[in-house]
Amino acid sequence: MPVRAAVAGASGYAGGEVLRLLLGHPEVEIGAVTAHGNAGQRLGAVQPHLVPLAGRELVATTAEALAGHDVVFLALPHGQSAAVAEALGPEVLVVDCGADFRLADAAAWERFYGSPHAGTWPYGLPELPGAREALRGARRIAVPGCYPTAVSLALFPAYAAGLAEPEAVVVAASGASGAGKAPKPHLLGSEVMGSMSPYGVGGVHRHTPEMAQNLGAVAGEPVTVSFTPTLAPMSRGILATCSAKVRPGVDAADVRAAYEKALGDEPFVRLLPEGQWPSTAAVYGSNSALVQVALDAAAGRIVVVSAIDNLTKGTAGGAVQSMNIALGLDEATGLSTIGVAP
Amino acid sequence: MPVRAAVAGASGYAGGEVLRLLLGHPEVEIGAVTAHGNAGQRLGAVQPHLVPLAGRELVATTAEALAGHDVVFLALPHGQSAAVAEALGPEVLVVDCGADFRLADAAAWERFYGSPHAGTWPYGLPELPGAREALRGARRIAVPGCYPTAVSLALFPAYAAGLAEPEAVVVAASGASGAGKAPKPHLLGSEVMGSMSPYGVGGVHRHTPEMAQNLGAVAGEPVTVSFTPTLAPMSRGILATCSAKVRPGVDAADVRAAYEKALGDEPFVRLLPEGQWPSTAAVYGSNSALVQVALDAAAGRIVVVSAIDNLTKGTAGGAVQSMNIALGLDEATGLSTIGVAP
Amino acid sequence: MPVRAAVAGASGYAGGEVLRLLLGHPEVEIGAVTAHGNAGQRLGAVQPHLVPLAGRELVATTAEALAGHDVVFLALPHGQSAAVAEALGPEVLVVDCGADFRLADAAAWERFYGSPHAGTWPYGLPELPGAREALRGARRIAVPGCYPTAVSLALFPAYAAGLAEPEAVVVAASGASGAGKAPKPHLLGSEVMGSMSPYGVGGVHRHTPEMAQNLGAVAGEPVTVSFTPTLAPMSRGILATCSAKVRPGVDAADVRAAYEKALGDEPFVRLLPEGQWPSTAAVYGSNSALVQVALDAAAGRIVVVSAIDNLTKGTAGGAVQSMNIALGLDEATGLSTIGVAP
Amino acid sequence: MPVRAAVAGASGYAGGEVLRLLLGHPEVEIGAVTAHGNAGQRLGAVQPHLVPLAGRELVATTAEALAGHDVVFLALPHGQSAAVAEALGPEVLVVDCGADFRLADAAAWERFYGSPHAGTWPYGLPELPGAREALRGARRIAVPGCYPTAVSLALFPAYAAGLAEPEAVVVAASGASGAGKAPKPHLLGSEVMGSMSPYGVGGVHRHTPEMAQNLGAVAGEPVTVSFTPTLAPMSRGILATCSAKVRPGVDAADVRAAYEKALGDEPFVRLLPEGQWPSTAAVYGSNSALVQVALDAAAGRIVVVSAIDNLTKGTAGGAVQSMNIALGLDEATGLSTIGVAP
Repeated sequence: MPVRAAVAGASGYAGGEVLRLLLGHPEVEIGAVTAHGNAGQRLGAVQPHLVPLAGRELVATTAEALAGHDVVFLALPHGQSAAVAEALGPEVLVVDCGADFRLADAAAWERFYGSPHAGTWPYGLPELPGAREALRGARRIAVPGCYPTAVSLALFPAYAAGLAEPEAVVVAASGASGAGKAPKPHLLGSEVMGSMSPYGVGGVHRHTPEMAQNLGAVAGEPVTVSFTPTLAPMSRGILATCSAKVRPGVDAADVRAAYEKALGDEPFVRLLPEGQWPSTAAVYGSNSALVQVALDAAAGRIVVVSAIDNLTKGTAGGAVQSMNIALGLDEATGLSTIGVAP
Repeated sequence: MPVRAAVAGASGYAGGEVLRLLLGHPEVEIGAVTAHGNAGQRLGAVQPHLVPLAGRELVATTAEALAGHDVVFLALPHGQSAAVAEALGPEVLVVDCGADFRLADAAAWERFYGSPHAGTWPYGLPELPGAREALRGARRIAVPGCYPTAVSLALFPAYAAGLAEPEAVVVAASGASGAGKAPKPHLLGSEVMGSMSPYGVGGVHRHTPEMAQNLGAVAGEPVTVSFTPTLAPMSRGILATCSAKVRPGVDAADVRAAYEKALGDEPFVRLLPEGQWPSTAAVYGSNSALVQVALDAAAGRIVVVSAIDNLTKGTAGGAVQSMNIALGLDEATGLSTIGVAP
Repeated sequence: MPVRAAVAGASGYAGGEVLRLLLGHPEVEIGAVTAHGNAGQRLGAVQPHLVPLAGRELVATTAEALAGHDVVFLALPHGQSAAVAEALGPEVLVVDCGADFRLADAAAWERFYGSPHAGTWPYGLPELPGAREALRGARRIAVPGCYPTAVSLALFPAYAAGLAEPEAVVVAASGASGAGKAPKPHLLGSEVMGSMSPYGVGGVHRHTPEMAQNLGAVAGEPVTVSFTPTLAPMSRGILATCSAKVRPGVDAADVRAAYEKALGDEPFVRLLPEGQWPSTAAVYGSNSALVQVALDAAAGRIVVVSAIDNLTKGTAGGAVQSMNIALGLDEATGLSTIGVAP
Repeated sequence: MPVRAAVAGASGYAGGEVLRLLLGHPEVEIGAVTAHGNAGQRLGAVQPHLVPLAGRELVATTAEALAGHDVVFLALPHGQSAAVAEALGPEVLVVDCGADFRLADAAAWERFYGSPHAGTWPYGLPELPGAREALRGARRIAVPGCYPTAVSLALFPAYAAGLAEPEAVVVAASGASGAGKAPKPHLLGSEVMGSMSPYGVGGVHRHTPEMAQNLGAVAGEPVTVSFTPTLAPMSRGILATCSAKVRPGVDAADVRAAYEKALGDEPFVRLLPEGQWPSTAAVYGSNSALVQVALDAAAGRIVVVSAIDNLTKGTAGGAVQSMNIALGLDEATGLSTIGVAP
């Protein structure tokens, strides 16, 4: 019997990508697709790339509409997930693509989001030490932020092996879909094309404490992250350039060995052959993360670059991967490591 | 027992896309992957998005390398297919993504390609009247050009129903991958980004006689095509804007009815609901063609716009769809109608 | 004594481009810069590329703010220009970048714009026969639409010389800035990048009657225009591909001669050497129009392609060029034919 | 009497940009334009945006062709400048856009470029302490690299004021024109569009020692630079995100004050108002550098972001600015701070 899944927030980019992946998932049947402002429209008018669902009607996001499913994906503005989850009951698997249940530190939540902390759910980045185990059988999953996915996959091997000082510097470029579908002047095509620009500089971006949480847990000590996100002229993709001072006595072979050990068996993370560097093009639409690492001896830093598709591995793919684990399915079911390129 | 397939020209864009689709085809096992200049390299260095094949070695394109397969896809420069096909023997299904066997008119071939005509193979655009039948059981297939795919799907319904005068005007925009992977200055990113430019203007593009052949066969009389291709600042996609004078007495309802009749049952062509127009974004990486038609009463013209992915439905997807038919598989096996968007 | 100029609507794309050009105009001093929603902000926050004006305050668009200038540029939503112009008095040169005073045919205005016709002002496309003369000493100027600029420059030589049948087919690609700065979902960078899409298909785009007006006046008989605009993934630029059936007996030399005669002396239109085709990249930020023409003998059509920058020659540059003529300045003052490329 | 200038390497991107700027320079007359592979072609075929020079013939780069000019701009592959300069004689102003004479440390040159060190010329970044003075009357100028321009302008104020530890971390995104016009597969539009990718990771990029040289000279002690360049899907622009640990006791006001002091009077560097961040779009085609700085107290780092046009301020604009100083002209002659946006 198929897993029956609903998607709340199906008119946005995250919700659309969840649907795209579920359409290719052999164990899932798509139930309700809900929206807020677009309720009443056909999905084909809002997500014209989802041809098999073109005739489906978007219904309003209500507890009634979402009831009666085995899995409910939430792609809602933050602050709304707790109430929806409560209405669904504990036996339904709720996969939250929003931020509400990602942080364990209530104070950090309140400082960065300015609202009361809702709680903490099992974290949907199975590659982190211990995360896969915590997801098995879970009925609540907090899908990581797109930047924290790219950055945590890049840096956790270094911290797990004790190779780097606990002060990371991250500069990441994201495609415009990371900013969502709500129209704002600075996200217009005319503004974005041909332009790179930073935002949330100086430690104020909301994904900063999530990165620090992930890396600190692995390192066993607090890790600070100097994080600068930039908006790149592309629709999808995150390229994260991450570095930290290398600990004394660590050489390039140590670094390579640590990354091979940490990532070598992961189905969706590929440590590239030495000398080859990742590009976001190679992971377009795929659930892969590509990673490469170098030791800059002159500067005394480990430099790691990762590339993901922000909507796939960074959001909807991570959500489906985590769902698979929670439901006891093969982790890779319905997910592809193959990008659409060029 | 799986169908064993080889791909000749696997380092280029067409060959890479064939591999991308075959990786998702449940009945196919990928055999030899061959190249010319890149022979000896790992596929992962040349096509980094094809993660599952990263370790495969590209071998030289020889008859020996291609022997022993059920299907051989050729993604070679034109002029090379005949010799390769001959060496493979008549029982092997040869699917030629090149131009060599597309045209029936030897004189047209020689005028546009400047070399002797190699012959004519069953034409891999199943949506054209009679084409699907000709593909069943075929062991040689000529995959259409990308522009002729987009334009023929847009205009054949009008000509099949006798609605339009036999003088078509087509302006099409193509992503840069249509020009291939051989590096030339005018194809550099710096030149392409932010720029639209025409090429092959005035009836000299080699896809012109192929369009005329397809539309003329449907119309039952010669059809001229004024074709202007343009290079658009995107990697993939063709948007074809096609028009022709409407025949006297034809109204909008006639036009709509003709398109619904011709396209309504096609698994990979979607006539959009009235008022909605196609975009190349919606077919990114998919085998769908999106079509919309309008009657401009003031100008007296039927205007049809189609969008395809030049590498998928326009090349590799059409090739796999035709292979499915030739082998007696379900036509849609391994192919998706779902685009990767945004 | 410098010409004192005000710009109404200075926070939008057209207004910003007028300011960019006026900053380089040796005879102009920039006075009031006004806006609607952005009034009260510094220009540097809204138009960060206009560094020398960064500290200027945007004031509300009122008759008082615009009073006391020699020239007032209007870059307002259509329907607002008549009232503003009336308040300014007849001695002030009013240059309207909007549509209100472009059409002579009141019925066509009402059909396409759905509001009462405001009147007709001298038309700011000096290259059209008679237009330059009508602009000398004018105190009201209607700046052409961006598409009509590109299309009229491409086709008027053919109609002036009687070479083409009066049924033109035009497919034009425009950068996203042509759609303005008001944020809408389909104009988001995520939607625009990597995608071509048509809009206003079937003769319903508002620039259609303006093209027909210009070409009909030159031809001395009504000319129909089948016009399909498309949105291209770039910020600026229009590439217009235009064609019409060639009249009997006209050969390629006739066509070339007609274009050389019509365009040879124009300071801002360049008929390219035979075999070279225009690109929008080559006119980025410049007031140039690049034009090339071919005769497709097989299809029996003259094919003309023109490239302009929609914001420069297509709007603000045409406005400044026309202002120069009206004020008796050298027509090229403050305008450049040099694009910013690559 | 005008300054007579020649440009060697006029068919490339740097040479084309020098010509674009010289066309707008009121004191300069353009003499010989030379090329290597494109010699014999009209400039209009190679640089179609330079409309006023379209009919000029590119001649071969020889000492004879370059003789008889007051200024010679060299935009040649590295290793060729010394011989050309010697042939020109000491009284000619030679402005070298290449790398040959940038580094003072011969060992660093040899390590990064693998060839003998040619020498050191006055460095064409007038904003650095002492640089403007060294350029006055100079007859040899080494134009900085594009990345070192962006990074030095961003970080020198912090090091001049002693605010930061001597270990800088820089991640910069560059448009594809930075890689030049020689066609290579990874620079094709199909590869570049929609993709971010790093290169030269781990301290191996040739601009690294140049940054260290500039910052070290200002700091009065060696400064290491961990530099990661990335290729962004745009034609022009560099966005450099730079950071370094803040020294104890330094607060945000100290940082702001240092930047205002260092940059406040510079004609081509604009420290943005607090809260506004630079974008490459705002400096497209202009000689401006936009800079903003923040103190990330949690991470203990000063974060500075700068945006330049790599071809203008990063190459040709810096060259012309330095030429102006050397010749005793107003430093800003022929240069604009106004970008072409959107």
